[in-house]
Amino acid sequence: MRLLDESRQNESDGGSRIHERRIQNEETFQSWTLLPADPQKPYRRSRGFVKGCLLKLKYCLERVCGMEWYVYAALGMLSAILSFLMDLSVSKLLTAHQWLYSQLEGSSLLQFFCWTLYPACLCAISASLCHNICPFSTGSGIPEVRTMLTGIQLPHYLSLTNMFIKFLGLICTLAAGSTIFLGKVGPFVHLCTMMAGYLSKLCSLLQATKQKADGDMLVVATAVGVASCFGAPVSGVLFSMEVMSSHFDMQNYFPCFFSVACGALTFRLLSVWSGDEETLQVLFQTNFPMELPFLPSEILLFALLGWLCGAVSCLYLSLHRLMLELITTNAGVINILKKQKALYSAVVAFFLASLTFPLSMGQHMASKSTMKQLLTSLLENTPWTSQSHNASWQLETEWGSSDYSVYLSLTVFLLMKLWMSALACTLPLPAGYFMPVFIYGAAMGRLLAEGILYISSRTQEWSSINPGRYALAGAAAFSGAVTHTLSPALLALELTGQFGHVVPVLLATLLANGVARAGSRPSFYDAVSISKRLPHLLLSMQLEHVLGAKRVQLQKAAGPEEVRHVVNSSSETQIPVVDSHGGLTQTLDRHLEEVCSIQPSFALLCPHNTIQEALSILRLAGGQTVFVTDRGRLLGRVTWSEMKRILEDLAKEI
Amino acid sequence: MRLLDESRQNESDGGSRIHERRIQNEETFQSWTLLPADPQKPYRRSRGFVKGCLLKLKYCLERVCGMEWYVYAALGMLSAILSFLMDLSVSKLLTAHQWLYSQLEGSSLLQFFCWTLYPACLCAISASLCHNICPFSTGSGIPEVRTMLTGIQLPHYLSLTNMFIKFLGLICTLAAGSTIFLGKVGPFVHLCTMMAGYLSKLCSLLQATKQKADGDMLVVATAVGVASCFGAPVSGVLFSMEVMSSHFDMQNYFPCFFSVACGALTFRLLSVWSGDEETLQVLFQTNFPMELPFLPSEILLFALLGWLCGAVSCLYLSLHRLMLELITTNAGVINILKKQKALYSAVVAFFLASLTFPLSMGQHMASKSTMKQLLTSLLENTPWTSQSHNASWQLETEWGSSDYSVYLSLTVFLLMKLWMSALACTLPLPAGYFMPVFIYGAAMGRLLAEGILYISSRTQEWSSINPGRYALAGAAAFSGAVTHTLSPALLALELTGQFGHVVPVLLATLLANGVARAGSRPSFYDAVSISKRLPHLLLSMQLEHVLGAKRVQLQKAAGPEEVRHVVNSSSETQIPVVDSHGGLTQTLDRHLEEVCSIQPSFALLCPHNTIQEALSILRLAGGQTVFVTDRGRLLGRVTWSEMKRILEDLAKEI
Repeated sequence: MRLLDESRQNESDGGSRIHERRIQNEETFQSWTLLPADPQKPYRRSRGFVKGCLLKLKYCLERVCGMEWYVYAALGMLSAILSFLMDLSVSKLLTAHQWLYSQLEGSSLLQFFCWTLYPACLCAISASLCHNICPFSTGSGIPEVRTMLTGIQLPHYLSLTNMFIKFLGLICTLAAGSTIFLGKVGPFVHLCTMMAGYLSKLCSLLQATKQKADGDMLVVATAVGVASCFGAPVSGVLFSMEVMSSHFDMQNYFPCFFSVACGALTFRLLSVWSGDEETLQVLFQTNFPMELPFLPSEILLFALLGWLCGAVSCLYLSLHRLMLELITTNAGVINILKKQKALYSAVVAFFLASLTFPLSMGQHMASKSTMKQLLTSLLENTPWTSQSHNASWQLETEWGSSDYSVYLSLTVFLLMKLWMSALACTLPLPAGYFMPVFIYGAAMGRLLAEGILYISSRTQEWSSINPGRYALAGAAAFSGAVTHTLSPALLALELTGQFGHVVPVLLATLLANGVARAGSRPSFYDAVSISKRLPHLLLSMQLEHVLGAKRVQLQKAAGPEEVRHVVNSSSETQIPVVDSHGGLTQTLDRHLEEVCSIQPSFALLCPHNTIQEALSILRLAGGQTVFVTDRGRLLGRVTWSEMKRILEDLAKEI
Repeated sequence: MRLLDESRQNESDGGSRIHERRIQNEETFQSWTLLPADPQKPYRRSRGFVKGCLLKLKYCLERVCGMEWYVYAALGMLSAILSFLMDLSVSKLLTAHQWLYSQLEGSSLLQFFCWTLYPACLCAISASLCHNICPFSTGSGIPEVRTMLTGIQLPHYLSLTNMFIKFLGLICTLAAGSTIFLGKVGPFVHLCTMMAGYLSKLCSLLQATKQKADGDMLVVATAVGVASCFGAPVSGVLFSMEVMSSHFDMQNYFPCFFSVACGALTFRLLSVWSGDEETLQVLFQTNFPMELPFLPSEILLFALLGWLCGAVSCLYLSLHRLMLELITTNAGVINILKKQKALYSAVVAFFLASLTFPLSMGQHMASKSTMKQLLTSLLENTPWTSQSHNASWQLETEWGSSDYSVYLSLTVFLLMKLWMSALACTLPLPAGYFMPVFIYGAAMGRLLAEGILYISSRTQEWSSINPGRYALAGAAAFSGAVTHTLSPALLALELTGQFGHVVPVLLATLLANGVARAGSRPSFYDAVSISKRLPHLLLSMQLEHVLGAKRVQLQKAAGPEEVRHVVNSSSETQIPVVDSHGGLTQTLDRHLEEVCSIQPSFALLCPHNTIQEALSILRLAGGQTVFVTDRGRLLGRVTWSEMKRILEDLAKEI
C-alpha cells in the first residue's frame, strides 16, 4: 500500500517529482560519463561515445515523462507489430492451402488429402515444437496469466523460448484454418505478457528510480494483448479487469489505456500502410442501418437469444470438462499425450478435417471459409432466406443457396462444431478458444433470427428484423457465457463499430452470463485451471490448513549464545522475536535491540483467515513478512516465497 | 474480505445456495404467516392477506435470483425514469422561455428583461430552495460521493430532503439554459446514490440473508447515474471505476453492468414511448461516414488537439481555483453567500444572461441554442466555412452566416465561456459541471478543424477532414483533462454511436490528461473537495498523527470487580484485553474467557501505517475493529466510527 501510495503521488505531484528527477538524472549522467570504462574491453572510445549518446537520449526522454511510459508505448506498438506479422503469415499459409486445393479440382481423392493432410501436418508441427522445445507453450495461456496476476510466479511461462515457440506454434495452429476451429486471442495475450516481462526488466535496467512492479506490467500486457489482436482498445482494458481475480488496482488504469491506444493505433496504421485496408477502419465492417437500431419489441427476442446462449454454453462447458477429464484420467490417452503429442494432434486434426471435407459433410458447414470469412458472413446485414424467394437474387454465401440449405447448414454447423470445438481444445498446441465460441454464438444468433424471419413472414410483425444484429448479440452472449465475462459484449461492438447496439448486446450477454453462472459450474478458463492444477482458484482456503512447520524463532530473553546458534542454524534473513516460546508474539526486545535491527511487524493474521486474505495483506504490505498468530502464540509466517510453496503444495493435492 | 469471499461464493455456488435459500424462505414464510398480527391495529384480516401476498411474491422472486438483483434492476429503471422526467420538465421550461422571448419580438427592452430575468429567477428559486431547506444539496455532489465511496459516511448527503431539493433545484438550474451554462450529470449521480441508499435499506428489510454492504450499492449507483443520464452504459461503469480512489472491487462489476443495462434500456424505451425519438437511437445522432474514419496523417492533428485541450484545461482549472478561493476567503463574498444565497445567484445569473443577450454580444455566442442544440450543431458533419463559398448554400447554424462570423462566434464563445463557466461554478445551487466543459471542448475541436480547413483550402492536403470528428475528440479531451479522467472518451463515443473513432478520441483524451496532470494541479473535483474540506484526499497521512486518546482496556489479570467497573464506565461494545497495561497486546485471556466472548483480533497496525492503509485493512476486515500497537503496547483502535472522527478532525484542520 505504501508502494501504491507513492506511485499515486508520483502522478499527482508530477511537477515537483519531475524537477527532482531532473536533478537526479543530471547527477547520474555526470557520474556515469565520468566513470572509466573497463580498460580490458576493446573500442573503449567508441563504446564510450555510444554510451554517452544513449545516456543523453535517456536524459532527453525523461524530461518529457517517466521511462515507464515509453515502455508502455513500446509494449503496445510491439504487440501490434507482432499481431500484424502473425496475421500476415497466417493469411499467406491459408491462401497457399486454398490455391493448392483449387489446383487439384477434378480429383476428389487428391483434394481430400490436400484438405486433411495440410492442417494435420501443421498441427503436428505445432505440437512437436511445443513437445520438444517448450511444453509450457501449449494451450491458451490465459489460466496461467490469471495465476501470475494473483502474484504467483511461474517463470517457465515467461521465458524467451516459450515466446518464440508460442509465436511459431500459434501461426501453424491458425494456418490450419476453420477446419480445426481454433483462435488467436488467448495465446496472444500470453505472448504480450512475456514481452511485458522482458520490457519490464529493460525498464528497471534503464531507470535510476524505483521500478514499477512486474505485476502492473502484466496487467497492462493482458489489456494490450486483446487490444492489439483485434484493434479494440476499450474491451482490452475491460478484459484485463476481468481476468484479475478480485480487485483492479486503479493505478494501472491510465497505463492500460495509454498502452492499448498505442497498440490499437499501430495495428490500424499497419493495416493501412500494408494496403490491406484503405483507412483505419474497424476489423469487421458492418453496415447495420443506424436509423432503426431495433424495435422495442425486439428486446424480448434479444433476451431469448441471451437465455438460449447461456443454456447452450452450459452444454458446451460440460462437453469441454468431459474431454478434459478424459485426457487427464484415461490411461491410454494420457500415455499417448505424454509421448506422442505430434501424432495425437495429427490424428485429431485429420479426423476433424475429414469431417469438414467440402465434397461431403463440409458443404453443410461452410467449411471453405476462413474464420474471418465465417464471422463476416454471419454478421451480414441482409437476411439469407426471405430474400431468396426473389428469383433474381442469388445467395452468395457459403451457407447454401436455398432456404432449406441455409437452415440445414446452420443447424449442422451448430451441432457438429459443438463437440468438434470441445475436441479441438484437447490438442496440445498453442491455441485460443475465444474466437471459436464467438463465431459459434454468431451462428446461433443468425439461426434464431432467420428462423423468426421465416415464421414472421406471414404475420409481418418482426419481418423487418436484421439477422446480422442477432449474430452480433449471439456472439457476445455465447462467448461471454462460456468465459463468464462481460467484455465480449464490448468486443463485439468494437469489432463492428456498432455502438448504437450496446443495449441489446449487453442485455443478451448479461442474461447468458446469469444462466451460465447459475449452477456452480466453473467457467471455461476455470475448468482448464482445475485440469492443469493451477493454484489460483484455491485462495479461499483457511490458512491453518496450509501453514508449514513452525520456523525458527527467538525468545525475548535469549542470550548471545542462543542468538548466535539460531542465526547460524537458520538461513532466514528475518527472525521473529517472541516473548517466550509458549507465549505472546512480540516485535521488539530490549536485549536484542542493542545488537541487531528489529522491525515492528506490519500486520498479524489469525489462522482462520483465508489464503486470499493473506495474499491481499501481503500485497498491501508491499511484500513484507506477515505473521500468523493464534491466541498470542506465533504459529508461522507468510512471505511471498512461503505463499508460493503453499500454493504449489495445494496444486499437487488437487 | 470474508464478506467479499462469501458473496463471490454466492455467485459461483448459486445452485446449492438457492436450494438452501428456498428451504430458509419456506420456513420464514410459514413462521411469518402464522405469527398473529398485532390485535390492536385495524383491518387485521386485510393486512394479513396483503402481507401473505407480498411474502408469496418475495418467495417467487427469490426463486429466480437473489433479492439484490431486483434492487439493482429497480435502481437502473427508477433512475432512468427520474432522468426522463427531469429532461421533460426542463424542455417544457426552456420552450416556455423561448416562446415568451419570441412573443416579445419588436421590443428590445422587454426581450432583454425576458432573457435575463427568467434564468435569474430560476437560479434564485433553486438557490433559495437549497439555502432554506437543505444546504447540502448545492454543487455537483461528485466530491461528496467520492468521499462516501472511501467509506466515510456523510448522512446529510443521502437524506430524503436532499433528494427532493436536489431534484427540484436541478430542474430550475437546467431550465436556466445555456446562458448559465450548467449541466446535469454530477447532481444526477448524487441523486442516484441517494436512491441507492434507500433501496439498499429496503433490500436489507426484505432480505432474510445478509445484506450487501451499502458501499457496493453506492458504486453501482454512480455507474447508473451516468448511464441513465445519457443512456451510455459502458462509460457509466468506467466512470464509477474512476471515481473510486484506489481499487475497484470486481465484485461490483457484474451488478454495475446489470444495473446500467436496465437503466440505459429504460431510458431509451421511454424516449420511444414518449414519441420523442422513433427508435432506440443514441442521444446525439451523427452521420460521420464510416468508410473513411480518418486519414493516418490526421493522427497528428488529433494529438495537437489533445495537447491544446490539456493546456487550456490548466488555464480553466486555475480560473476555477481562483473563483473558489475568492468565495472562501473574501469576507464580503463569504458574508453574501452566507445570508443572501438567492440574491447572489440571481445577480450572477442576471449578469451572465445580460452578457449573452442575443441582440448584443450573444449573437456571437450562439446563445439562443440550448445546451443540447449547441452540442448537436458543433458535432455537425459538414464544414461550416468551406461550403459557405457556395452562394446557394445558406448556413443554418446559430454560429453565423459567413466564414468571418463563424470564426468570430467560435472565438468569442471560447473566450467568454471560459471565465463565465468558472463564475457559474460558484453559484450555490445544484448543478453539474461536466456538460459545460464537454461542449467547450467540442467548440475548441470545431474551431481547430475549421481553421485547418481554411488553411488547407489552398494546399488540398487536409481539405477532406470532417470538423465534427474534431469536435467529438475535443469534447472528450477537454472534459477528460478538466476532470482528470478517461471515461469522457468513451462517453463521447457512446453519445454519438461513433465507435470507429475510438483511436483518435482516446489518443486526444490521453494526451490532454497527460498535459493536465503534468503539474501537481488538482483536478476539478479535487479542487472542490479541498475547498469544501472533504477529507478523502488526506488518506496518505500516518496514523500516529491522528490517533485519539487511549481508550479503556482490560488487563489479563483483571478481577470481576475491575471488569464490572470497566464495562460500566465504558459505552464500547468491544473492550480490548491486554497482557498488562504496559505490556503486550493480547487477544485472549483465560480468566475472562470463562465469562465473556473474546474474539481474536483480525489485524494489527503500527502507527507508521497511513490512514489509507488503515481504511483498506478495515475494508478487508469487513468493518471489524483494527488495533494499533507500537512495540507491543496498545496505542489505540480504529473502527469505522473512529475513522470517521479522525477524518472529520482532519477536515477541520485543512
